[in-house]
Amino acid sequence: MAEYPNSFQKLLDSFRRLPQVGNKAAIRFVYAVLSMSDEEVRVFAENLVKIKQSLRKCKQCNNLCEEELCNICKNPARDYGTICVVTSSKDVVAMENVGQYQGVYHVLDGEISPSKGVLPDDLHIANLLLKIDDRVKEVIIATNSTVDGEITAMYISKLLNGKPIIVSRLAHGIPIGGQLDYADERTLIKALEGRTRY
Amino acid sequence: MAEYPNSFQKLLDSFRRLPQVGNKAAIRFVYAVLSMSDEEVRVFAENLVKIKQSLRKCKQCNNLCEEELCNICKNPARDYGTICVVTSSKDVVAMENVGQYQGVYHVLDGEISPSKGVLPDDLHIANLLLKIDDRVKEVIIATNSTVDGEITAMYISKLLNGKPIIVSRLAHGIPIGGQLDYADERTLIKALEGRTRY
Repeated sequence: MAEYPNSFQKLLDSFRRLPQVGNKAAIRFVYAVLSMSDEEVRVFAENLVKIKQSLRKCKQCNNLCEEELCNICKNPARDYGTICVVTSSKDVVAMENVGQYQGVYHVLDGEISPSKGVLPDDLHIANLLLKIDDRVKEVIIATNSTVDGEITAMYISKLLNGKPIIVSRLAHGIPIGGQLDYADERTLIKALEGRTRY
Repeated sequence: MAEYPNSFQKLLDSFRRLPQVGNKAAIRFVYAVLSMSDEEVRVFAENLVKIKQSLRKCKQCNNLCEEELCNICKNPARDYGTICVVTSSKDVVAMENVGQYQGVYHVLDGEISPSKGVLPDDLHIANLLLKIDDRVKEVIIATNSTVDGEITAMYISKLLNGKPIIVSRLAHGIPIGGQLDYADERTLIKALEGRTRY
């Protein structure tokens, strides 16, 4: 195998740590970096370091944000009576892009997965329960339509059982085995409209 | 559209400048960075900045390297009598991976392209000619088999015309493992013209 110069190989290795980036793509990325201006590369490096320093979890919903509360939890126009429970903050973005949902979110930061050893206590489930007060009318469980997502949905719905709220689940539209952040907008709208009671 | 936190959007924008990286891939990359350790991200950022500082062009062949001469030009075991002329240092790596070529290289850093306004003077053609001395026996022109690559090959072969050296071009034909009915007509004609005896 040909040897790349040391600094080339190192950046190539860094790019290869990104998801779905193979050797060929990583090489293309390194050449792209080489053709960028010094300033552009400096900004790129700065953005990498800054994101780790600036981003934190919203105190209320665990969504990614830069302040104590995320933009959604801070927004007085949102309906605090409806909580959409999602696996990750990626899913918040996917839902927000649809522009139909007016409630707030609760990010679990994962899914219960017996096979991967992820237990309910590893997720933000306990503080979801603490949030259920008189104001809350509905909890929409919008975990992925995968095995782990369904287990998580089932688990949460059982915990909420007996509370005087509607517990619903996104229904039609999400393909079985599909992940929420891969769904197109129309599918997401359908899923939101057709949500069913647990 | 949902708004990402500022630092998230900035890194997303940086990733989107990489070739063939769309919005979905860039988002996946940002999340991957968020799940990396602080140290890993610091190294990534450092690698980005370092490559611009450390990499330069080999004084002899214009290949990417970190010292005055690249590893190939520095290697006394290489055959300095054969020069393989390529478009970019990517092609040096492709050729080296084959592990069959023992000569040295000359990187043009582009191809003559009338449509893109790239003229012979914009490439490292003049210093290729200066390199042709008594030691050189053969120049293999290995530019791409595209219109620009062929123009460049033709131009260089004409400049070398009259020198007491062999000027050759990589063979055209059916790729190994390729199917005849998938080959385009011009490839088939070239393959037929260049047929070799068993």
